[in-house]
Amino acid sequence: MLSLAAAPLGVRTLVVDGSADACAGQVSELVVADWNDDEALEAFAARVDVVTFDFENVPAATAERLAGLTNVFPNPGALSVAQDRLAEKTLFRASGLNTPDFEPVDNRDDLVRAVARIGAPAILKTRRLGYDGKGQFRLKTADDIDAAWAALGEAAASVGLILEAFVPFDRELSVVAVRGRDGAFRTWPLTRNWHVDGVLSLSLAPAPGTSDALEQAAISHARTIAETLDYVGVFALELFVCGAELLGNEMAPRVHNSGHWTIEGAHTSQFENHVRAVLGLPLGDTGVRGASAMLNWIGDMPDPTPVLMVADGHWHDYGKEARPGRKVGHATLCAPDAGSLRTKLAAAGAALGRDEQVAPAVDLLG
Amino acid sequence: MLSLAAAPLGVRTLVVDGSADACAGQVSELVVADWNDDEALEAFAARVDVVTFDFENVPAATAERLAGLTNVFPNPGALSVAQDRLAEKTLFRASGLNTPDFEPVDNRDDLVRAVARIGAPAILKTRRLGYDGKGQFRLKTADDIDAAWAALGEAAASVGLILEAFVPFDRELSVVAVRGRDGAFRTWPLTRNWHVDGVLSLSLAPAPGTSDALEQAAISHARTIAETLDYVGVFALELFVCGAELLGNEMAPRVHNSGHWTIEGAHTSQFENHVRAVLGLPLGDTGVRGASAMLNWIGDMPDPTPVLMVADGHWHDYGKEARPGRKVGHATLCAPDAGSLRTKLAAAGAALGRDEQVAPAVDLLG
Repeated sequence: MLSLAAAPLGVRTLVVDGSADACAGQVSELVVADWNDDEALEAFAARVDVVTFDFENVPAATAERLAGLTNVFPNPGALSVAQDRLAEKTLFRASGLNTPDFEPVDNRDDLVRAVARIGAPAILKTRRLGYDGKGQFRLKTADDIDAAWAALGEAAASVGLILEAFVPFDRELSVVAVRGRDGAFRTWPLTRNWHVDGVLSLSLAPAPGTSDALEQAAISHARTIAETLDYVGVFALELFVCGAELLGNEMAPRVHNSGHWTIEGAHTSQFENHVRAVLGLPLGDTGVRGASAMLNWIGDMPDPTPVLMVADGHWHDYGKEARPGRKVGHATLCAPDAGSLRTKLAAAGAALGRDEQVAPAVDLLG
Repeated sequence: MLSLAAAPLGVRTLVVDGSADACAGQVSELVVADWNDDEALEAFAARVDVVTFDFENVPAATAERLAGLTNVFPNPGALSVAQDRLAEKTLFRASGLNTPDFEPVDNRDDLVRAVARIGAPAILKTRRLGYDGKGQFRLKTADDIDAAWAALGEAAASVGLILEAFVPFDRELSVVAVRGRDGAFRTWPLTRNWHVDGVLSLSLAPAPGTSDALEQAAISHARTIAETLDYVGVFALELFVCGAELLGNEMAPRVHNSGHWTIEGAHTSQFENHVRAVLGLPLGDTGVRGASAMLNWIGDMPDPTPVLMVADGHWHDYGKEARPGRKVGHATLCAPDAGSLRTKLAAAGAALGRDEQVAPAVDLLG
């Protein structure tokens, strides 16, 4: 999607990935190389003006190495903070954004102490390399310590662990934001998100029923964090709303699944603005065309017909092989207002056999 | 632009072109081969489900040859009618769409007789292989017969000639239409076009001040022609408006420059609907998001900054080398209504130093 957004700007993309069937290769030149292959990185860097990432777990050493050879945005330091749940949450708190309670866990004793202090339920997570609910273990009570350690203890040495309090949040929101090389900063309207088994299932934007005060607070946190990191490009700040309080969950240092609706729903998509930002072009307007809902396709693609037949319904098939749990595509429905979006969404959900998936948004828009 | 529209549908494109730097190769796999190379065509056909064209002058023999090997849309017969100004105008008249007066010209005597009958001013054109004003000679009076013959006489044997009456039209419109494999038919709102030196310079959609009766007549002609040809895919019917009368100028059997605004200005772009049509997918809604203006960039690309800074302003750089007279890109400005489009267009025109190019639309929207 980044390559597709880059092309009309006259920007050619060169993608480096370890896999020859990386889906970006369908619309871009693809260099197949290991991200740890210094020689390949050097040849790659020599061919490009700017390097960026659409995957947050690119090794920090790779980003550092590239930064010694060419322009890299976001900068490797920002990437490494966002890759580490401990550094990220520490930054959130230092920036005035509260977070669920947390404790670093380096060994089993740490875990016992952390559970004693934080209580249960709580979630043991890898500090690095986790995404989409992977590398997580939920402790319902302190009795689950052994099971949690059995599941993740081995990872403590390589990627670190963190215990986070389980927060009974009211809703999940994200701020998708972009910061330019000149410091210009813009956000799209807040997005409401629903996850299933730790994977994003449904997004709705602009998030209905969000007060101006809450929206301004969320944007202000995103901006402070971006400025602290001297971040350049698009990122998402995932938030929990608990009563009147906003808690920082995590920061994704890249274009984000909860911003996919911007392709059709906003004047400038997150993909185009990421390209503009890292190249130093003026950022595009983040205003919306109406209301949008995004449905993720996990595992395999449904029949596209119901979406193709909806006015302002848009299909995105990533050209990936079907695999359980894999994000293989999404659909976006746009409408001038919340009421007509609700009608479209309910109808498409029924026609797709995905009533359950659309239900939270249909209910909220009703 | 077709490849970019195909990708989100999960459709991979394979482009065959004689030139290794064909710009589609930036976003698609490219096979470099001559369109007359039977062996290359055979290998190409074996790799694809459907063949289509974004250039109307693909040799009819190439289309025929491919149609013997795989699915080809539009069908070679429709392509060959649309490639020939004489066949095309004959079809228009048979379909009830009047045209400027015309006469086929095979030799100099024909030209003399044709000028005597049609009068001057008139335009001598090649029947085939002309586009963007190429292969045309305007006769102001009968005294220009010698000059006209000197310019185009040599082409009479290979591509044929036609003399067309010069029509002092009030305005130029196009119907961009799409017909599916199942006969479904849709059009985008009529587009008003302005040409400079025979090349499209500016388009405005929906065409302001168009009566329902005129719009319905134009759509009806497009539909009749498409059904007569059993046409599948997107095409443009270019029309002159002379007082209350519509005259058929030509038909472009492909996605058309006057439909480029649909990428951002309509719920489904001409490119996506062409892909859907030739693949037998349901056609997408052709409703608009507001008013749109498209500016063509001829010769070289201007500085993109003024357009990138306009809300809902969109840049399209085809990644082509600059060359006098070459279409190298375009920009589209969208707005919720004609009044705000006028404001944006005037401001962007001034910032780009292109006041003259935007003036006809600014005047009309004022």
